[in-house]
Amino acid sequence: MFERESDWAIGGPAVEAVKEQLRAWLAEDIGSGDVTTMSTVPPGHQSKGIIHAKQAGVLAGIPLARLVFETVDPALKFDALASDGAVVERGTVLAVVEGSTHGILTGERLALNLLQRLSGIATKTGEYVAGAKGTPVRVTDTRKTTPGHRTLEKYAVRIGGGANHRFGLYDAVMIKDNHIKAAGGITAAVQSAKSRIPHTMMIEVEAESLAQAEEAVRAGAHIVMLDNMSTTAMAETVKALRQSASHIVLEASGGITPERVGEIARCGVDVISVGGLTHSFQALDISLDLNAKKPGGTP
Amino acid sequence: MFERESDWAIGGPAVEAVKEQLRAWLAEDIGSGDVTTMSTVPPGHQSKGIIHAKQAGVLAGIPLARLVFETVDPALKFDALASDGAVVERGTVLAVVEGSTHGILTGERLALNLLQRLSGIATKTGEYVAGAKGTPVRVTDTRKTTPGHRTLEKYAVRIGGGANHRFGLYDAVMIKDNHIKAAGGITAAVQSAKSRIPHTMMIEVEAESLAQAEEAVRAGAHIVMLDNMSTTAMAETVKALRQSASHIVLEASGGITPERVGEIARCGVDVISVGGLTHSFQALDISLDLNAKKPGGTP
Amino acid sequence: MFERESDWAIGGPAVEAVKEQLRAWLAEDIGSGDVTTMSTVPPGHQSKGIIHAKQAGVLAGIPLARLVFETVDPALKFDALASDGAVVERGTVLAVVEGSTHGILTGERLALNLLQRLSGIATKTGEYVAGAKGTPVRVTDTRKTTPGHRTLEKYAVRIGGGANHRFGLYDAVMIKDNHIKAAGGITAAVQSAKSRIPHTMMIEVEAESLAQAEEAVRAGAHIVMLDNMSTTAMAETVKALRQSASHIVLEASGGITPERVGEIARCGVDVISVGGLTHSFQALDISLDLNAKKPGGTP
Amino acid sequence: MFERESDWAIGGPAVEAVKEQLRAWLAEDIGSGDVTTMSTVPPGHQSKGIIHAKQAGVLAGIPLARLVFETVDPALKFDALASDGAVVERGTVLAVVEGSTHGILTGERLALNLLQRLSGIATKTGEYVAGAKGTPVRVTDTRKTTPGHRTLEKYAVRIGGGANHRFGLYDAVMIKDNHIKAAGGITAAVQSAKSRIPHTMMIEVEAESLAQAEEAVRAGAHIVMLDNMSTTAMAETVKALRQSASHIVLEASGGITPERVGEIARCGVDVISVGGLTHSFQALDISLDLNAKKPGGTP
Amino acid sequence: MFERESDWAIGGPAVEAVKEQLRAWLAEDIGSGDVTTMSTVPPGHQSKGIIHAKQAGVLAGIPLARLVFETVDPALKFDALASDGAVVERGTVLAVVEGSTHGILTGERLALNLLQRLSGIATKTGEYVAGAKGTPVRVTDTRKTTPGHRTLEKYAVRIGGGANHRFGLYDAVMIKDNHIKAAGGITAAVQSAKSRIPHTMMIEVEAESLAQAEEAVRAGAHIVMLDNMSTTAMAETVKALRQSASHIVLEASGGITPERVGEIARCGVDVISVGGLTHSFQALDISLDLNAKKPGGTP
Amino acid sequence: MFERESDWAIGGPAVEAVKEQLRAWLAEDIGSGDVTTMSTVPPGHQSKGIIHAKQAGVLAGIPLARLVFETVDPALKFDALASDGAVVERGTVLAVVEGSTHGILTGERLALNLLQRLSGIATKTGEYVAGAKGTPVRVTDTRKTTPGHRTLEKYAVRIGGGANHRFGLYDAVMIKDNHIKAAGGITAAVQSAKSRIPHTMMIEVEAESLAQAEEAVRAGAHIVMLDNMSTTAMAETVKALRQSASHIVLEASGGITPERVGEIARCGVDVISVGGLTHSFQALDISLDLNAKKPGGTP
Repeated sequence: MFERESDWAIGGPAVEAVKEQLRAWLAEDIGSGDVTTMSTVPPGHQSKGIIHAKQAGVLAGIPLARLVFETVDPALKFDALASDGAVVERGTVLAVVEGSTHGILTGERLALNLLQRLSGIATKTGEYVAGAKGTPVRVTDTRKTTPGHRTLEKYAVRIGGGANHRFGLYDAVMIKDNHIKAAGGITAAVQSAKSRIPHTMMIEVEAESLAQAEEAVRAGAHIVMLDNMSTTAMAETVKALRQSASHIVLEASGGITPERVGEIARCGVDVISVGGLTHSFQALDISLDLNAKKPGGTP
Repeated sequence: MFERESDWAIGGPAVEAVKEQLRAWLAEDIGSGDVTTMSTVPPGHQSKGIIHAKQAGVLAGIPLARLVFETVDPALKFDALASDGAVVERGTVLAVVEGSTHGILTGERLALNLLQRLSGIATKTGEYVAGAKGTPVRVTDTRKTTPGHRTLEKYAVRIGGGANHRFGLYDAVMIKDNHIKAAGGITAAVQSAKSRIPHTMMIEVEAESLAQAEEAVRAGAHIVMLDNMSTTAMAETVKALRQSASHIVLEASGGITPERVGEIARCGVDVISVGGLTHSFQALDISLDLNAKKPGGTP
Repeated sequence: MFERESDWAIGGPAVEAVKEQLRAWLAEDIGSGDVTTMSTVPPGHQSKGIIHAKQAGVLAGIPLARLVFETVDPALKFDALASDGAVVERGTVLAVVEGSTHGILTGERLALNLLQRLSGIATKTGEYVAGAKGTPVRVTDTRKTTPGHRTLEKYAVRIGGGANHRFGLYDAVMIKDNHIKAAGGITAAVQSAKSRIPHTMMIEVEAESLAQAEEAVRAGAHIVMLDNMSTTAMAETVKALRQSASHIVLEASGGITPERVGEIARCGVDVISVGGLTHSFQALDISLDLNAKKPGGTP
Repeated sequence: MFERESDWAIGGPAVEAVKEQLRAWLAEDIGSGDVTTMSTVPPGHQSKGIIHAKQAGVLAGIPLARLVFETVDPALKFDALASDGAVVERGTVLAVVEGSTHGILTGERLALNLLQRLSGIATKTGEYVAGAKGTPVRVTDTRKTTPGHRTLEKYAVRIGGGANHRFGLYDAVMIKDNHIKAAGGITAAVQSAKSRIPHTMMIEVEAESLAQAEEAVRAGAHIVMLDNMSTTAMAETVKALRQSASHIVLEASGGITPERVGEIARCGVDVISVGGLTHSFQALDISLDLNAKKPGGTP
Repeated sequence: MFERESDWAIGGPAVEAVKEQLRAWLAEDIGSGDVTTMSTVPPGHQSKGIIHAKQAGVLAGIPLARLVFETVDPALKFDALASDGAVVERGTVLAVVEGSTHGILTGERLALNLLQRLSGIATKTGEYVAGAKGTPVRVTDTRKTTPGHRTLEKYAVRIGGGANHRFGLYDAVMIKDNHIKAAGGITAAVQSAKSRIPHTMMIEVEAESLAQAEEAVRAGAHIVMLDNMSTTAMAETVKALRQSASHIVLEASGGITPERVGEIARCGVDVISVGGLTHSFQALDISLDLNAKKPGGTP
Repeated sequence: MFERESDWAIGGPAVEAVKEQLRAWLAEDIGSGDVTTMSTVPPGHQSKGIIHAKQAGVLAGIPLARLVFETVDPALKFDALASDGAVVERGTVLAVVEGSTHGILTGERLALNLLQRLSGIATKTGEYVAGAKGTPVRVTDTRKTTPGHRTLEKYAVRIGGGANHRFGLYDAVMIKDNHIKAAGGITAAVQSAKSRIPHTMMIEVEAESLAQAEEAVRAGAHIVMLDNMSTTAMAETVKALRQSASHIVLEASGGITPERVGEIARCGVDVISVGGLTHSFQALDISLDLNAKKPGGTP
């Protein structure tokens, strides 16, 4: 899945996998049964559920909320009134779900929990992207995602205007401080990797100084990550590296706030990666109000 | 699982279920292989990994981090130097994991992601509990948990000094505004529930006014939740209800900050439930440093 | 799921879970293939299967039989001619399933095994409910259900006119003799439970004497179960308890036969729970006869 | 698995599959936690659980009860004092399980439910086998087993002295009335089967008369099942078939009670199959009493 | 499943099981996403994919290829232009799949891998069957199938004109050299089996000489497998056995090539089993070419 | 997993995943039970199983065979006498497995099926690697692997001296003819990919001519695959590309036999990829002979 809401419309198995995950998440909540709904709402009762924002932010997760309700009851009708990526205001109606009151109330909490989380991530990403406006830098996530939610959280980052870093331990080599220690140095680590990995895979090295960065470049790294540098040190390191290795991809990471993202971007790095996009965000406040219609009646 | 770290030592199936979940979360990250570790770290290489706090807070998740490393490699030795519930400072060493460098580095990210999240929740809970100090009130979570993480997040709330609300839709009846609309009123909803649910199950009703609360009590509710009231309204409502229905359990909810939790507690409610404990928290910063030892050598 | 056949029409995930269970049960029977049907019945052959009772009783499981055939072959047409809860006679036609002979014959055994079992339970429950006629008592099941069949068997109990006890170890506290021994007494057990469980959960205590029952009430139990008492002792205990604790819920259990259920009910208990409803019942005899129609022909 | 308790000690994957099934059945009961045990029994508390018969019968399921407790807590020590197949009296101690009280109480219900069911089946099988004593007939089960329990129930039949019929639809051809109708006659059905099934598979035909039985033999059936015949008809049919087809295997089925099994056996059939062994039996009453020992103390 | 392509149209659970397997196989290939298709092909882009043979052979797997594309995207339209069992030439168009280019390209590799493998097996089987032309012998497979592919590979053997041997260790007894050693001889092994297995199951014995074969027949084996004999020895052994045991089923196995299959068949055996049909075959070369149509445009 | 047998000793979850796969494959073969072994081999019988090559080749799969027997019965002792990568002769003893005869015979077929397949792949890879001897070229596999066996087959390729191409659709971009058509040209495809994929991922383009290869290089591809060229065309294209784009990685593919691999390698490509390594190979003939020892006796 890439950066568009329309990606949700593509490819059966990915969406099937999400639905299987949703069934497990529904089971976590429903267990042996939604005793409240089953004991208070008459069978056959019909309603409209109005989903609206109670806070401003960037919306993400509408196609997922649709899948939640479809999974709970395929007969529910879900009308999206806003799209992922929309900047919504307090009070904006995001979607209307219509049909069996049982299905709406049983699915409500999971749908809202997901919408609130993903919109929180998209909103936070949007702040970083805004901070880097006017530069060609990519703001990306990291692997500091919620276990079991990586695919969804990386989607929310894209919706917020960011890009993705590698998806996991399997799709790129990222040599960090701990690997360098174990391998016996940057050069040893990069060379060992080059001889063993498929020719289709890139090598990134984390560097804490210009010297380390240059060693990584000489050893054959494709990307260098400049970790936890002051803006001044970052600017100087980037300048030096661009002279010796014009095509190397440069990534900045570590302690970068929305306030500081602009000045780091203007140091000339290609990518800024931010763990906090996915590990520390405020859920966007979203709720569902029932607009009950009696069976056969009008709302 | 209840409120103690020792609960982790009890009961095979619960811990087995957690390990199965951890295997799925490891698979999310590792996929077809940790290409960096496998291509840079020599087979047989041994290390110590030092896990330490980079920020002060309430620790939660140590037994889970142990399970992560055990799942990655049963031969890894995990020594906890701090226990769940400990108030840790920046720099405190929390645990040391020793053995195959491959196992340590492959499990590192999942172990840290979980420790950071759960400690973040325990720390936030601790702030609410401190705010209510001196009152007999229980601070509880809600169902606004991260999908797939409910058991763990509810554990972190207990570690932070809080208590748990119902675990899901299946273990108590909670009649909210939307159910009341569909059922045709509070009395109708409570009576319908009473006639259908097992005699072993409680009924809670969400009330927005004294009148609603009194109707719920008359209909036979066991618990009344007072939603989104000002402190003054809360105090008056509690006082009135205590006169007419001394044994009813009273719960306050909605928009309660750590600053306001004390004054709400002093209104005389029994329980204060806070969604933000689990939906909006800051991960506690925790990291792992490798202290490499060569095979056969000294650290 | 509660007490109506219409509950089957509600909620996607519950029915999906049943279908997944049915697929596993079909796999147990079909394994690598129904060699008889595949080698003797021509592809495309069409039939009507007539499902009829060979014995009188209370019918339960019709929506489940429908799901079995739908799972085997979604194109099969299943017409129910009787509803769950109906009192059927020997010879009553319960349903007709029409379509591919392959699907009908491959699903036949599982559909009948389930119908026979659930109808057996409903029939036995009906005998107890009849025995308590004229009293307000609830006849309930216990946790002595067939492993893997609890949801279905508890449904059959409701269809037979009974009610359900707790669903499992997770939705109510039930303190029995063994817990009391381990906790060091009834009072200690109840108080320990009260301090640890969510405020939304009830506590039931098993008592073998009036003294134990009174201790349980004083300690704060919500329900007292009077275990294995003679009718006389039961009557006296109930009377004494009603004086001191008018609102306590009282449950009788242990060795209660259909013959004795009326006199126990008239002792004034609220609930009578009977393990034998689900652990020892006679399957109701039900079979399927094929009324073959050639492809394109008339029946 | 065949007819001995020692079969349980053989073969990893079969026992692993049973343990996986037990975990699912434990999950059905435990759900989000055994709230009673966790809230009333102190962590670390140790006990002995004494499992004893409250009724006479044939014991079956001891190795399964052991697996239940091992699955709940691998540290529990399970000592069997009686073996599967033993004829036990009221009061016989069957096994002692020792260790964590939490594990014992959480596993108790599943262990007892299984022991009670399997011993009920073995006891009922034993009555049939006793009825046929002195004849070489095999008493077998059918496919009228509880869904999900076939392997276990067929084991209990063997323990009770019976033998097994085919395991499912996949391991033998059994041509019944409905297949004959669809195939256009016995001869057509048998010939169609012969040409399509592996040469390693047998064909059994259900016959309601001597003429049908003879047609089946002529067409090449290996086994003929004589369905629902009076004893006289059975005796005559067997005699006639033995003359024309000495090697055919003959099976009697349909409405055979323990009282009638001897006379049917003496008609000269090889096999008598009885659906009721597994669809309608009385659970054998078995219970567990805790003999608590304090931590470090004596019982 | 037996020998016809139409078998795929029968029975829900078998096809459902195949689809579940296909989802796992798609996941093996797609993992976290088909990055090429998602990043280069516009959403909504429509195409026709032409599947054609690049080599002559016997086609097998068309209904499976259809299921692959249906699983990837239920909206894809798959038109088969050739049926399983067809002898195709280089260049023959086998099928056309039309719809979303994303779905076609994401499913292409799995569909082709399966078609190529199964057609390779059917083609090889066809060579053996041709070699035995004019004799009544059955050519069958063995258990030397690819793990996880047995059902599919045995289907391909049937499509190629062969028949199936037993499906696994569970549906027939096959006593080999190693069992004979452990049991203490052929007679002991057969008698032990006869007393323990269901009366519905056959016994086959592997014999390396006439003496062994005769011992097996006397002990009561239903089938004798003559292993690794020269054509002369085979002819003599068959002749001798036919005299003493006219109804015994005789199977030849071991080192039989397409060239030699005719002369073995003419020795008078009933069955020739060939491991190489499934363990060593050449994939048939098949590929898919895209005939792109713009959205709304013509091809 | 990379190129060494020692990789099997690393990392819990990968090996756990293999064991789970093995359990499913064992289930495919064993189903409801290995009726032959259970009915002919006495419980407790002990043996040694000698695994030996019946044909020369490159051995692969020894650690997997060990896992099969461990999965069947953890008490079996498996001694490897040869290592993966060894060139074995006809008659070489590869391993000895000792313990319960039941376990050995039940696991035999799966262990041999896997050993035979992987050794067949390693042997074929070895022929290609030998053909390219003296050049720095890498021989790699493709995605034409057996569904469900990719990880294992890619391991066997490494054992045979080859290297791996990408693992799936998720870890590198490979733009083929069909993607180029859908994207509207090579330049459009590469640019669209570059803007959407993570900065950590490479782009490979399939080219059929020098012009296409040059367009790919200009657009920013990291790797160019030269498809199905004659040796002369290959040599010229490589030479031209090396002048204009010295650092581009060049891969040859399509119709390359062991005889031709040397001349293609000498054209100067970096990588030669061969689908046939995994789609069309001869299983290496390997078998197991039992050397029975009576319980307590000597072999």
